[in-house]
Amino acid sequence: MAAHSNAELRQLVHQWMELHREEGTRFLQSLVRIPSTQGNEREAQVLIADQLRELELDVDWWEPDGETLEAHPFFYSPRSRFAGSPNVVGVLKGTGGGRSIILNGHVDVVPEGNRDQWRDDPYSGKVEGGKLFGRGATDMKGGNVSLLLAVGALRGLGLKLKGDVIVQSVVEEESGGAGTLAAIVKGYQADAALIPEPTNLRIFPKQQGSMWFRIEVKGRSAHGGTRYEGVSAIEKSIAVVQHIRELEERRNAGISDPLYAHNPIPIPINIGVIQGGNWPSSVPDTVKLEGRMGVAPEERLEEAKEEMLRWMERLREKDSWFEAHPPAVEWFGARWVPGSVDPEHELMQVLARQYREIRQEEPVIEASPWGTDGGLLTQLGGTPCIVFGPGITQVAHYPNEHIVLDHVFEAAEMIALTLIHWCGLNGMEG
Amino acid sequence: MAAHSNAELRQLVHQWMELHREEGTRFLQSLVRIPSTQGNEREAQVLIADQLRELELDVDWWEPDGETLEAHPFFYSPRSRFAGSPNVVGVLKGTGGGRSIILNGHVDVVPEGNRDQWRDDPYSGKVEGGKLFGRGATDMKGGNVSLLLAVGALRGLGLKLKGDVIVQSVVEEESGGAGTLAAIVKGYQADAALIPEPTNLRIFPKQQGSMWFRIEVKGRSAHGGTRYEGVSAIEKSIAVVQHIRELEERRNAGISDPLYAHNPIPIPINIGVIQGGNWPSSVPDTVKLEGRMGVAPEERLEEAKEEMLRWMERLREKDSWFEAHPPAVEWFGARWVPGSVDPEHELMQVLARQYREIRQEEPVIEASPWGTDGGLLTQLGGTPCIVFGPGITQVAHYPNEHIVLDHVFEAAEMIALTLIHWCGLNGMEG
Repeated sequence: MAAHSNAELRQLVHQWMELHREEGTRFLQSLVRIPSTQGNEREAQVLIADQLRELELDVDWWEPDGETLEAHPFFYSPRSRFAGSPNVVGVLKGTGGGRSIILNGHVDVVPEGNRDQWRDDPYSGKVEGGKLFGRGATDMKGGNVSLLLAVGALRGLGLKLKGDVIVQSVVEEESGGAGTLAAIVKGYQADAALIPEPTNLRIFPKQQGSMWFRIEVKGRSAHGGTRYEGVSAIEKSIAVVQHIRELEERRNAGISDPLYAHNPIPIPINIGVIQGGNWPSSVPDTVKLEGRMGVAPEERLEEAKEEMLRWMERLREKDSWFEAHPPAVEWFGARWVPGSVDPEHELMQVLARQYREIRQEEPVIEASPWGTDGGLLTQLGGTPCIVFGPGITQVAHYPNEHIVLDHVFEAAEMIALTLIHWCGLNGMEG
Repeated sequence: MAAHSNAELRQLVHQWMELHREEGTRFLQSLVRIPSTQGNEREAQVLIADQLRELELDVDWWEPDGETLEAHPFFYSPRSRFAGSPNVVGVLKGTGGGRSIILNGHVDVVPEGNRDQWRDDPYSGKVEGGKLFGRGATDMKGGNVSLLLAVGALRGLGLKLKGDVIVQSVVEEESGGAGTLAAIVKGYQADAALIPEPTNLRIFPKQQGSMWFRIEVKGRSAHGGTRYEGVSAIEKSIAVVQHIRELEERRNAGISDPLYAHNPIPIPINIGVIQGGNWPSSVPDTVKLEGRMGVAPEERLEEAKEEMLRWMERLREKDSWFEAHPPAVEWFGARWVPGSVDPEHELMQVLARQYREIRQEEPVIEASPWGTDGGLLTQLGGTPCIVFGPGITQVAHYPNEHIVLDHVFEAAEMIALTLIHWCGLNGMEG
C-alpha cells in the first residue's frame, strides 16, 4: 500500500474512465432501451442489481409496501401497490472511521408523450455526435451510470474507503418520491447524500419543493344569447388566475437568497390545466384549474398551503361574487418536499474542489428550480442531500431527450474523487 | 252550423282548456320525463306522433337523411346521422281558401349539466306551486304542448279551418336546425309560421342568429418549475377572451333597433368552453375556446364571420406573440340563421289582438336575444316566422328549469284563436 497524491488519484480515475467508456456507454444504452415508466421498472432494476453484485456490493431488493407507506405523512403517490416496481440498494461497506454517503438515483422515467415529436424511437439509445438519445437518458439514467462508474472505478482501482457508500436505485421519483421514502422508512441513512439529477453539472445545495393544486371556480349558467343573466365561470377564472399571479409575485419578492440570483421566478406557481363549460351556447358554471405551486427550500409544505388558502380568501375583496362563491382549493396528486443544505457544507466543498480541479473552472452553485427526492432525504431522512449530475435540464421530459456522453464520464470522475475525499481513503489493494 | 262572435269563440276555447288542464299537464309531464337530448329524441316523438294521430292529423314520420342534408348550404350539425332522431309532422288539412300556417317546435333538449345544482331529478316533471319542473319544460316542451292543446281545442270544439295547419315536431334545434331544414327540404311551406320558444309570452318578429366558433390559442411548453422559459397558452387565452369582449362592445354599440331597447347586450358573444393543458407541472401550449357569436336579425352570417376574423387579426397590435402565433378561428357545429319579419306583418297583428283580448294588456314586442329555427323558415323556407311562447327565457338551459302551467294554457288559447283568425273559420261541426 502506497500513499497517493490528489493529482495521482485524479490521473488513475481518469485513466480507468477512459478504459471503460465503451462499456459504460453500452450499459447506459441498455438502460435507456428499457421503457421503465411507472409500474414498469423491474427490468431496469434487474440490470442495475446485477451490476451492483458484479461490483461486490451487498444488494437489497424489495418492493415497497404500499399499505405501510400510505400511513406515512410524507407519502404521495397516485398508486398504493408497488408489485413489479422494486427498489434496489447496494452497500459498499467501508473499513470504518469514515463518513458515509448515499448515492441516490431514480430509475423511473416519464412517459414519452407524442411519439411524432421524436426523431427516433423514444427508447432507441442511439449514439450520435457524442450524445446518447432516449427517454430517461438525461433524467436520469445518465446520472445513475455516473454513480455506477464512480463505484466501479473505486473497485477497479482497488481503492478501499473508510465510510460506507450506499447506492440507491429507486422507483417513483416522478410521481412523488415513494421509492426514496420506502428506503428511508427501511432505515437507510448516511452522513450526506448526492443525487445526480440533470443539473448541467451545476451544483444544487437547495431545491424547490412543489405541490399540485386544483381550484374549482363557480359561475352561474345561462343561455349564451342572454349571457348577461348568467355569470361566466371563465371570466371569474381569469380573476383567479390573475390573483394567483399576484401571489406568485409576493412570494418571490420575499426571496433574496443569492443562489436564486439568476432565476427570474425562484418559486413559480404554474397553472397547467384549465377546463370549463361544456356547451358553446351556454354560460359556463364551473372552471377547473390545476397547477403546481413551487415551495421555497426552507419553507414547509404546510406553510405554503396556508398562504395559498389565505390568499384565495382575499379574492372577495376584489369581487363580491367570491364572497358567496369562494373557489374551492384542493391539494392532490404529487408533492415534492423542498430541501436546503448549507452551501458551505463539507460535501459541497469537497465536490466543488473536484469540479475545479478537473474542469479548471468555478462550478455554478444554484438553487434548483424543481424538486427531487433530495428534499425527503434532507428533511425526513436525516441525510443532507445535494444535487449534481451530468444530464441536461432543458431536455428532461421533452421529446428527443439526450445526454452528452463526455459529461457522464466527467461527472463519474468527480463523484469517484468526492467519495474518496468524503468517505476517506483507507488504502489501495495490491 | 252557426256563426260565432269573437267573444263566444274565446269563451268556448277557454272552457275547453279549463276542461283539459289535467290532461294537458299530464302530457307535458310525460314529455319532460323523457330525456330527449340530442340522439335520444325518438321516445318523445312517439308520444307526439300518437297525440297527432289521436287528433286525426295526417302524420309524417321520418329520420332526416344526413347525406342529402350535408350538401345543403344551410346544414349545420355536429352529426351527419339521424338514426333514432325522427322528425314528426302532422297536417290538419283546411277546407280551402284560407291561409296556411306552420306551427314548429323542437323536441330536443340541452343536457342537464351539473345534477348537483338541481333540487330534484332533472327529468322529474314535478309540479309544485303551479310550475312544472324539468329539463325542457320551458325550452320548449311547454310551448309544444300549447300547440297541441290549440289544435286539440279546434278539434274538440269541432271548429273547421279554411287554411292548413302544419304541426312540426323537429329534432336538432339546439345544434343548428337540421330538423327544421329537413322539413323545409321535404317541401313543407306555409303562408306564415309560429314557433312557441320560451319568450315569456312576449312576441318576437325578429331574432338573433348565431354561430359557433372555436379558437385555438398557442403557447410554448416548459416545465412548471421554470415556467418563465415557456409561454402559457392560458395567459394568452385571457388576452383573447378580453379582445373578444371588446368586439362584443363594438358590435352592440352599433345597434339602435327599438325592439332591442330593453336588452343590455343585443348580440352577445358567449364563450362557453375553455380547455387547455394536460399536466399541472407543465406550461400549457394550447388552449381551446368555444363559443357562440350572436348575429343581428338583418345581418348575414358571412358578414359577422368576416368581422370576427378581421378583429382577431388585430390581436397582434396588443401582443407581438400573436404575430407569430395567430389564434386559429374555426366555425363549427351549430349555426342559427337570424330572422326578421315586419313587426306590422298580419300574423303579428292577429296574434297581438288575441293577446290583448285575453290578457287585457299590451303585448311586449321585442327582438329575440337568441336564434330559433324561425330564421331558417323565414330566410330559406319562404315562410315568415314569428316567435311567441309560454316558457320562461331566464330558466332555459338552467338547472331547475320550469314553466308556469297557467302560461301554457293561456298561450294555447291565444294560439287557437290566432289559428282561427289567420287560417279562417269555415264552420263548426255538429
